[in-house]
Amino acid sequence: MPKISEERRTERREQILAGARRCFAEHGYEGATVVRLETATGLSRGAIFNYFGSKEDLFIELAVRDAARMSDLWVNSGLEAVVREVIELDPAWLSVYLELFRRLRNDPGFGKRIETRQRTVAPANRARIEEAQRTGEFRDDLEPKQVGLFVNLILSGLALQRASGEELPPVELVLGLLDDAIGGRAQPGTPSRTRA
Amino acid sequence: MPKISEERRTERREQILAGARRCFAEHGYEGATVVRLETATGLSRGAIFNYFGSKEDLFIELAVRDAARMSDLWVNSGLEAVVREVIELDPAWLSVYLELFRRLRNDPGFGKRIETRQRTVAPANRARIEEAQRTGEFRDDLEPKQVGLFVNLILSGLALQRASGEELPPVELVLGLLDDAIGGRAQPGTPSRTRA
Repeated sequence: MPKISEERRTERREQILAGARRCFAEHGYEGATVVRLETATGLSRGAIFNYFGSKEDLFIELAVRDAARMSDLWVNSGLEAVVREVIELDPAWLSVYLELFRRLRNDPGFGKRIETRQRTVAPANRARIEEAQRTGEFRDDLEPKQVGLFVNLILSGLALQRASGEELPPVELVLGLLDDAIGGRAQPGTPSRTRA
Repeated sequence: MPKISEERRTERREQILAGARRCFAEHGYEGATVVRLETATGLSRGAIFNYFGSKEDLFIELAVRDAARMSDLWVNSGLEAVVREVIELDPAWLSVYLELFRRLRNDPGFGKRIETRQRTVAPANRARIEEAQRTGEFRDDLEPKQVGLFVNLILSGLALQRASGEELPPVELVLGLLDDAIGGRAQPGTPSRTRA
């Protein structure tokens, strides 16, 4: 196959994903009909489903990319960068996840497919927590898994409040209290941000 | 009006609310059609809408009751009781809230109506935070509002993870880390639960 064709395939894939993401965000998952997906991507249903087998596949690919992006941010830029990112996420796009939770519970196969794909970033995330515990960024008297679960809890809360339009706590407060909860002794003698 | 009639009205209202709650949880907000609401409540649409003007009114009344119940629990039994309650909430019912976040953003009048009604519990919630700061249960170097926003963030995270079927952090871990973040000096000399 000539090289140009491979490049075009990649371009086309990205075009479909970007359009589908806009379409899901605007109309919701159920509301993203095939006709609307065609309009949003600028491609025929034949072309779309040639690249992705189903609407579900489209969503899963987008969710996997989200997980990979968050993981990269965490591994390369740290917790503060992740918190700031979540606070700025598009509420309309977040709502697509919320809409799918009923489905995730009622259709275990769907949840399984997402989880299996997203799990590929878990080792990198965990290694970064262990590193943060070694360097004293995070406390080391908890299991890495416990730290991860708590950070995840905070990020879930921020995502939900962002999606609902509720008042978010100031980012400095969140970072300060997170540090009080799971921060280590990176700078002994330095008072933590929120405690006097 | 004879007294029995008033009692019957109250009973009927409760019957409608209980049925509507089951119906929303089972079918989602959009899926709770008038026919399904009739089946779930055992009453005709005429009877239902005689008590509540619209499906929206039904949901708002249920949401207001949730807020009141959580507030009572917080005021009378404290944070641990609230955390344990949220962790046990019905995922199907939680999903109804999630489903409505898109609507809450797109229809400010709807959000306004819920907020106005739910806001009645805010003074009691705030007074309880202030009391917890006075007694040393919570740290007193933060504004009560900041403490409230952080607790809310944790509860939102728990609710979202409960709704999604994700792995929840163990309740003792959540309570311990919450204590490290916002706990006061109620028992000086006692190490906090999670820090050695």
